[in-house]
Amino acid sequence: MNITLEQAEAVIAEAKKKAVEINTKMNIAVVDSGSNLVAFIHMDGGWIGSVDISMKKAKTAAWFQMDTKELSPLVQPGQPLFNIEQSNGGLITFPGGVILKNKGNEIIGAIGVSGSSVDDDHAVAEAGASAIK
Amino acid sequence: MNITLEQAEAVIAEAKKKAVEINTKMNIAVVDSGSNLVAFIHMDGGWIGSVDISMKKAKTAAWFQMDTKELSPLVQPGQPLFNIEQSNGGLITFPGGVILKNKGNEIIGAIGVSGSSVDDDHAVAEAGASAIK
Amino acid sequence: MNITLEQAEAVIAEAKKKAVEINTKMNIAVVDSGSNLVAFIHMDGGWIGSVDISMKKAKTAAWFQMDTKELSPLVQPGQPLFNIEQSNGGLITFPGGVILKNKGNEIIGAIGVSGSSVDDDHAVAEAGASAIK
Amino acid sequence: MNITLEQAEAVIAEAKKKAVEINTKMNIAVVDSGSNLVAFIHMDGGWIGSVDISMKKAKTAAWFQMDTKELSPLVQPGQPLFNIEQSNGGLITFPGGVILKNKGNEIIGAIGVSGSSVDDDHAVAEAGASAIK
Repeated sequence: MNITLEQAEAVIAEAKKKAVEINTKMNIAVVDSGSNLVAFIHMDGGWIGSVDISMKKAKTAAWFQMDTKELSPLVQPGQPLFNIEQSNGGLITFPGGVILKNKGNEIIGAIGVSGSSVDDDHAVAEAGASAIK
Repeated sequence: MNITLEQAEAVIAEAKKKAVEINTKMNIAVVDSGSNLVAFIHMDGGWIGSVDISMKKAKTAAWFQMDTKELSPLVQPGQPLFNIEQSNGGLITFPGGVILKNKGNEIIGAIGVSGSSVDDDHAVAEAGASAIK
Repeated sequence: MNITLEQAEAVIAEAKKKAVEINTKMNIAVVDSGSNLVAFIHMDGGWIGSVDISMKKAKTAAWFQMDTKELSPLVQPGQPLFNIEQSNGGLITFPGGVILKNKGNEIIGAIGVSGSSVDDDHAVAEAGASAIK
Repeated sequence: MNITLEQAEAVIAEAKKKAVEINTKMNIAVVDSGSNLVAFIHMDGGWIGSVDISMKKAKTAAWFQMDTKELSPLVQPGQPLFNIEQSNGGLITFPGGVILKNKGNEIIGAIGVSGSSVDDDHAVAEAGASAIK
């Protein structure tokens, strides 16, 4: 099962609405379950360093079938996955990557958001994910 | 002067309309004049190898302020820019990247299209570029 | 639709049988339709430079939904896709990458073979592909 | 002395048996003593981000002639090898990479396993290593 462009556009529209609501300028990326990019937007005036981060967050979530915030505690010094970010050409393991599931609970892709605090990033990603029914 | 997200979305919508019309499944990327990605879509079933190519076409056009098809003859063996593709982490120098100008004739970004023949790719990119008034 | 490990192992077994038959030492890679690696073998004494080439052939076929030998004429100097190999972190566009289709004619992955002449490589890849019924 | 494909396949078969037993979906890579990939499998539904991690674990073990879990304490902040992961195009220094020795106690390669907790990963790698007599 893979996300369609129509679904990805709905995810981005919902995420963007939330980003505007909380007065942020986000980069928003959606990938399919195989981690390939399906859709992306960069909001006017947003950080351009976050273009890549939003994509890496979405890919990281798809690669490991979990939200990136699940990884954050595990990658700290002394923790089991310390420096896992060296793999796959670079992971992003802080909040803002959220998996996308269909109503059958199958993973169909992931959304990655970057451009504000990690809490804001995660909230916008969650809003985007809610667009999949 | 830089393209806005609203303009980039209009460019993509117009390009997508053309892609559907000529029965192709395209990857469509829009970058600003600084070559940073502003918007992207992958049409369902399109080549996933063209995600990267569409972006590289858009970036190549923005980097050199010309359509990628202008570069094609110059990069052949024996010609002045032979193997220029080795620069910038990889150029794509065949048709499908088109610069975007505003009505004041300033370059505000570029569109890159990949997913079919290079003639189709270029036609879809031109259609997208026409959305900027 | 994506290839299973069981199918990938059958593809590799068949390819390896052919490689032995024609007295070659091959590297054989199988990827899914999203271009992610599913299975790989390096035959004893085979070229180690072909580990990467076999994977890139499989990925190139999956990325563009066609056998790599279809690309070979198109990437020559003066032809439409000259230097397309600069994309996606490196393509291999000579024979030896073959798409894998199920009986419903859907692409479920690709096989890449490297370690001998490109004709041998392609023949071994074709043999592998025949394992999918 | 280097591992043969036949040995590598036995290692993978044993590791896979253990992975099934403990209900995990692993990526399993075997490299020779020169760190070149000999065989690999991705179990259905396993994390695709672990394709690369399993290979990097195997290579890291082969590169330093020790299990990756020996490296984990040494790479922490303030410890002698802090950030060694920056070398060789990326190391993975947490558990799951195990060296493979023949009965003469010579290193003939390494196995890397990724797809579950690091304890599970290491247990599956150990199971694989036991296939070498």
